[in-house]
Amino acid sequence: MSTTKIDIEISEVGPRDGLQSIPQIMATADKKAWISAEASAGVSEIEVGSFVPAKILPQLADTAELVRHARRIAGLTVAVLVPNLRGAQAAVEAGAHKISIPFSVSETHCQRNVNRSHQQMFEEIERIIALMNTADGPRPHFEVGLSTAFGCSIEGPIAESKVVAIAEKLVALGVDEVGLSDTTGSGNPAQLRRLVKQIWEHCGRDKLNGVHLHNTRGQGLANALAAVDLGLTTIDSSLGGIGGCPAAPGASGNIVTEDLVFMLEAMGLNTGIDIEQLISVRTLVQNALPNVELYGFTANAGLPLGFTS
Amino acid sequence: MSTTKIDIEISEVGPRDGLQSIPQIMATADKKAWISAEASAGVSEIEVGSFVPAKILPQLADTAELVRHARRIAGLTVAVLVPNLRGAQAAVEAGAHKISIPFSVSETHCQRNVNRSHQQMFEEIERIIALMNTADGPRPHFEVGLSTAFGCSIEGPIAESKVVAIAEKLVALGVDEVGLSDTTGSGNPAQLRRLVKQIWEHCGRDKLNGVHLHNTRGQGLANALAAVDLGLTTIDSSLGGIGGCPAAPGASGNIVTEDLVFMLEAMGLNTGIDIEQLISVRTLVQNALPNVELYGFTANAGLPLGFTS
Repeated sequence: MSTTKIDIEISEVGPRDGLQSIPQIMATADKKAWISAEASAGVSEIEVGSFVPAKILPQLADTAELVRHARRIAGLTVAVLVPNLRGAQAAVEAGAHKISIPFSVSETHCQRNVNRSHQQMFEEIERIIALMNTADGPRPHFEVGLSTAFGCSIEGPIAESKVVAIAEKLVALGVDEVGLSDTTGSGNPAQLRRLVKQIWEHCGRDKLNGVHLHNTRGQGLANALAAVDLGLTTIDSSLGGIGGCPAAPGASGNIVTEDLVFMLEAMGLNTGIDIEQLISVRTLVQNALPNVELYGFTANAGLPLGFTS
Repeated sequence: MSTTKIDIEISEVGPRDGLQSIPQIMATADKKAWISAEASAGVSEIEVGSFVPAKILPQLADTAELVRHARRIAGLTVAVLVPNLRGAQAAVEAGAHKISIPFSVSETHCQRNVNRSHQQMFEEIERIIALMNTADGPRPHFEVGLSTAFGCSIEGPIAESKVVAIAEKLVALGVDEVGLSDTTGSGNPAQLRRLVKQIWEHCGRDKLNGVHLHNTRGQGLANALAAVDLGLTTIDSSLGGIGGCPAAPGASGNIVTEDLVFMLEAMGLNTGIDIEQLISVRTLVQNALPNVELYGFTANAGLPLGFTS
């Protein structure tokens, strides 16, 4: 892993967001090898799974075991998604460093995704904060991901004032951070800039540091550039761009970690990642999931002749 | 066509850069229909072909006829590429509004692409300027495209000082404008910003207004965003992202017009283009070239629910 200061932290979400829409169950040993290989390439945060009931998402049933595995990797921040208090309890018990819960700004999507209204979500989040404050051991970082913040494939456009109001309420409740999620890949750089600035203004500069972008309409890296230009420091992405949201029709494809790392490193921003080593992790994932199509321009084209990061 | 002010001019290069690497000859009638359909969707500049010898690029042998066709479309700027003086003479005779010649900053690529050294290119460009100044009728706009300005797949990295020095010399010779071309798709937003600022500083703000970007490593729209943020006003792109450079190995894929227009219009920048009508032009091109793969995320995903430009 790089010893110089990291400018942009890449949060690899492939083992969670990438896998959740893939029917073929990836073997736990393969997931462990994937996590270890990415960490070894220098990725400093990995979302290893989600504490959802195994009958809903059998693909992610081994999340607790993956958290324990990933915690043994020095320097790695181990992140997990949780849909509710019960998931948060499991995450705390397993020892995750960072716990995220999705809060869909579109209430229709919220209801479909986690079967709760906005009011019920706020109450659940209050209970999770109470859990965090009373649990033994080091307190995990608790973030709420503002899903469908850029638009919803069920409700359509989402008012920016609604995103900001929900962010403000969540920060007032005591969450450590909110994140902006372009669940349906409908966002654009101007919208991202407006949203980030308004949330910073209403919630404080330290309450929003990251974005979760999808590449559904090819806008992922342009949106990531806008985020980085503003000063955001964490970008979610998925190796091979795998991913999607089962509850939002057409919400395909996370941004591709390899292409994102190429952009940032080429710009002179340190991610701490060895891009050639990162690209080589694709082979491991492809062998474990032979029927899954891995995306990514940089891996297919190769690095430019003479490229040094 | 839109009557409000156009913020960003899309220069559609599909009929030239898109087709030049495709072996199947597209029928002249299909090319005419393509040009007319894009103009009708609001595209205000189209590079309709290249005046190269037909035996080298039989695909583009009908360029003169396409210029005459395109000139009959009201409001459309008709652009062509030329490799040399002879091509420029043909372009002037046919009545092109805008004539571009590629000048590869990589001398190795220059030699392979147009069989001339840098010194020979400067001399040829002087002769073209003399032709422009003495020819009858309205003087076409004469631009030099700085190919491989972001890197070369034969020579490797290209010194920025070299790009700027060549641009300066060309402007001193009397070209109307230079353009930055990421021929091999190896550029990044930081590099683009540095190059544009240095050329503006050394050559004048009005001497560089456009970029020609490839999406080889998925960086096309991020680079386009950087260009637009700086204040560049013309972006080249290709319907369905078809294209490449036969003389630069691995230089595949122009940026996709549909995805670019989606980004710009979603950001509130007026391109004058009706995106739904633009997307429908794909059918015409696909029917004419059934074996060619059209790229593009926006066309595949569809516009976001409730999207208005």
